[in-house]
Amino acid sequence: MSPVTVDLNADLGEGFGVWQLGDDDAMLELVTSANVACGFHAGDPAGLATVCRAAARRGVRIGAQVSYRDLHGFGRRYIDMAADDLIAEVIYQIGALQALAAASGSTVSYVKPHGALYNTIVHDEGQAAAVAKAVHAVDPGLAVLGLAGSAFFSAAADLGLRTVAEAFADRAYQPDGRLVSRREPGAVLDDAEAIAARVSSMVGRGTVEAVDGTTIPIIAESVCVHGDSPGAVLSATAVRARLAVDGVVVKAFV
Amino acid sequence: MSPVTVDLNADLGEGFGVWQLGDDDAMLELVTSANVACGFHAGDPAGLATVCRAAARRGVRIGAQVSYRDLHGFGRRYIDMAADDLIAEVIYQIGALQALAAASGSTVSYVKPHGALYNTIVHDEGQAAAVAKAVHAVDPGLAVLGLAGSAFFSAAADLGLRTVAEAFADRAYQPDGRLVSRREPGAVLDDAEAIAARVSSMVGRGTVEAVDGTTIPIIAESVCVHGDSPGAVLSATAVRARLAVDGVVVKAFV
Amino acid sequence: MSPVTVDLNADLGEGFGVWQLGDDDAMLELVTSANVACGFHAGDPAGLATVCRAAARRGVRIGAQVSYRDLHGFGRRYIDMAADDLIAEVIYQIGALQALAAASGSTVSYVKPHGALYNTIVHDEGQAAAVAKAVHAVDPGLAVLGLAGSAFFSAAADLGLRTVAEAFADRAYQPDGRLVSRREPGAVLDDAEAIAARVSSMVGRGTVEAVDGTTIPIIAESVCVHGDSPGAVLSATAVRARLAVDGVVVKAFV
Amino acid sequence: MSPVTVDLNADLGEGFGVWQLGDDDAMLELVTSANVACGFHAGDPAGLATVCRAAARRGVRIGAQVSYRDLHGFGRRYIDMAADDLIAEVIYQIGALQALAAASGSTVSYVKPHGALYNTIVHDEGQAAAVAKAVHAVDPGLAVLGLAGSAFFSAAADLGLRTVAEAFADRAYQPDGRLVSRREPGAVLDDAEAIAARVSSMVGRGTVEAVDGTTIPIIAESVCVHGDSPGAVLSATAVRARLAVDGVVVKAFV
Repeated sequence: MSPVTVDLNADLGEGFGVWQLGDDDAMLELVTSANVACGFHAGDPAGLATVCRAAARRGVRIGAQVSYRDLHGFGRRYIDMAADDLIAEVIYQIGALQALAAASGSTVSYVKPHGALYNTIVHDEGQAAAVAKAVHAVDPGLAVLGLAGSAFFSAAADLGLRTVAEAFADRAYQPDGRLVSRREPGAVLDDAEAIAARVSSMVGRGTVEAVDGTTIPIIAESVCVHGDSPGAVLSATAVRARLAVDGVVVKAFV
Repeated sequence: MSPVTVDLNADLGEGFGVWQLGDDDAMLELVTSANVACGFHAGDPAGLATVCRAAARRGVRIGAQVSYRDLHGFGRRYIDMAADDLIAEVIYQIGALQALAAASGSTVSYVKPHGALYNTIVHDEGQAAAVAKAVHAVDPGLAVLGLAGSAFFSAAADLGLRTVAEAFADRAYQPDGRLVSRREPGAVLDDAEAIAARVSSMVGRGTVEAVDGTTIPIIAESVCVHGDSPGAVLSATAVRARLAVDGVVVKAFV
Repeated sequence: MSPVTVDLNADLGEGFGVWQLGDDDAMLELVTSANVACGFHAGDPAGLATVCRAAARRGVRIGAQVSYRDLHGFGRRYIDMAADDLIAEVIYQIGALQALAAASGSTVSYVKPHGALYNTIVHDEGQAAAVAKAVHAVDPGLAVLGLAGSAFFSAAADLGLRTVAEAFADRAYQPDGRLVSRREPGAVLDDAEAIAARVSSMVGRGTVEAVDGTTIPIIAESVCVHGDSPGAVLSATAVRARLAVDGVVVKAFV
Repeated sequence: MSPVTVDLNADLGEGFGVWQLGDDDAMLELVTSANVACGFHAGDPAGLATVCRAAARRGVRIGAQVSYRDLHGFGRRYIDMAADDLIAEVIYQIGALQALAAASGSTVSYVKPHGALYNTIVHDEGQAAAVAKAVHAVDPGLAVLGLAGSAFFSAAADLGLRTVAEAFADRAYQPDGRLVSRREPGAVLDDAEAIAARVSSMVGRGTVEAVDGTTIPIIAESVCVHGDSPGAVLSATAVRARLAVDGVVVKAFV
């Protein structure tokens, strides 16, 4: 019987100029997929080149973390964009990162929308279709990382894109499977052991405990361990240790 | 005997958001190479996608017009950048345009630096090498458009890049072959017939009259007809008419 | 009996760097209030200084046209901003323009929100209160220009700010008094004589014809003649001529 | 005999959006003058409002730290700007901060140029005059903080502005009194006790030891303790302790 496997992903390259965020090098020792910023919510080209080289050196796969154009709001604010604008903006970002990844001897394997764009295309069919079209236009072989059941996954599947369902290691879930908003108390967990136990359940049993205490099903081909929270390295280390105990093999999704 | 040929290039896609500059569609009827902005001195992704599609439809070749990051100064102000930063910024820009060009069914064939970056790498060996390295890192098959004899061409040739020498249809030249600065009176010509006559001389005889009245040699594999000056379409039309009379074939450089 | 008076306002200073928009000098001959951009949707400091000096020279009053931070979208896209962020951003913009106006020998007399912010605070009470608070924090003597009956006017009045109701010379109205969206056909009128006739009705009779042909009441202490549409100068000239015939005195609101 | 006094200043408000830099609250307990960023090299309005309120609460004086428009380079890269552009950009920044300071119940008392602009106007007379003119245009009562003997101080003095000479607690000096460039090793000191001893010498004896071991004269009406270096709080604490031992009174310059 082949062992259970799971991919671990984290958001990296999220500094800008003099400003740093998170510890990219430490996280790259722990994850198998790096969601690299593309300059629209964070990430200047020199910083992105550095993280691409670091990922390539370690054999960590690179994904393009595309966003609304909003450095000031870190891509966390919804922007009411026309579809054609959004398509072009996503193509631009993926292409920019592809060139930096190629210069580092690697390649972009997948696309993961960031922040408000991620949340918007869970339900907004117009923007969801725009992002899917953009990914497809750049390369139909690119996978997309996102929420199972989202409008984005429907649009991506319609175009034949490989969809990879992800779960969040450190986020609270509502009983219906949606995330608790960051604006709510308790939305982000920070106890490393509790986070590790949740991931163990997500991967081993396909379930997670929701905020109301009920157990809900969850699909986790990839688990996101956030790179920008203070305890990110600690949590990700605990997750790796727990998965090792569980006999789960951590490897990039195919 | 095969006819004399020359390439005509123009800067396009130089609007941003609501702001327009020049008449891209009219210019695309007249040139064989389109230097498309990459978002750093001008050009938002949706606008760049539009000009890529228009160029692709007409079979006009697409080049990446890379720049310092300076929308406010339209890339016309020197920025003292570290080499690693500049390399990454140029790679980022080329990659972004490559993806938009690919989505339009075309491809990026060459790179032409813009504005202050163009002028700086005529003599600044550090920045010249950085730009050449960036182009080479993206694709050694990309040509570079620039000034014959520049530090940029030396650096590009060292890396085996194809260099394409260009002359400017509407710019005054100093006796030593350098351009008269835009800050000087008479730096930019606007008489369409005079411009056409100059191009005829550049292409047919390999000479141009400098500001002091002397005749100087000039190499013009490609001639730049600016897209953003008010009389650009008129001048380019006159140039095409004159070259037709001269029996010169206008076609993209190989 | 004292004559009927009305203020005419237009959006000015809306270029950025090399990009120009509209004919500020011509419009300043026709209006009594200049809504000057503040750099967030348009307007670089040097351009704003120029329009402030030109307004001061002609005795045209200066208002601060505050916006979401969105050069790329020209402030026409809604941004989901937290109230504290919005308050600070509006204070920042007003202050920046105040200093430029003072350096030109004039002063900022009023504030008019721009684009998507204007539309949002017609109904969004949180953002409406934020903008009103920001204006009040800078100077309780500043007037605000906007839509009669809006959430913004309620919030401004609660703080004791002077509210000045404006009507749009060239925009179609719905039967309930709201503007027809720019995305609808017929939203923006361009026939100069028709526009002049509408303004004559707005000012003289306090009514305007809505898109469905019904006549609706409208309050117009100030009439906006847009500065950025192609026929703006022509329309504003026709409006002035018609108001002169009507015996209406065009002067700044008190 | 009245005691020796000195002002301590630090750069604050230098985050942007999600990105933080330095510990503003801790530094505000230690300094008497806060050089608050104005949004061009760092600092978004909401963050600036927060630091203005914190400074006002503690009675720390607020200065405007004006910069080239360069978030990406943190204002540390020279930009070749026309004088009229620079004047307007500096006026804009001071005005923006004035409004935020006023809303916090305080006021802007002085202006300190940042980074590459600071260094450029030590010798560049055109840009020096532009900055001085801008400060004067906003308010002739504003003081300027900078380097004694600089072109900036000449230009400011010509306009009647109060100039306040500053020394740097943690920067190495050349024998001629200029700073050692940040690109050189040893340019920035990090030993808190050594820094405190240097400040003691600067303030008590009017001298500092240059990199070649010679003792040189230095004028220090204000001493800059950088806010963004990792050990900033520690160093500034050591400086305060040492000055207390020396009997020097730390208070804002008049």
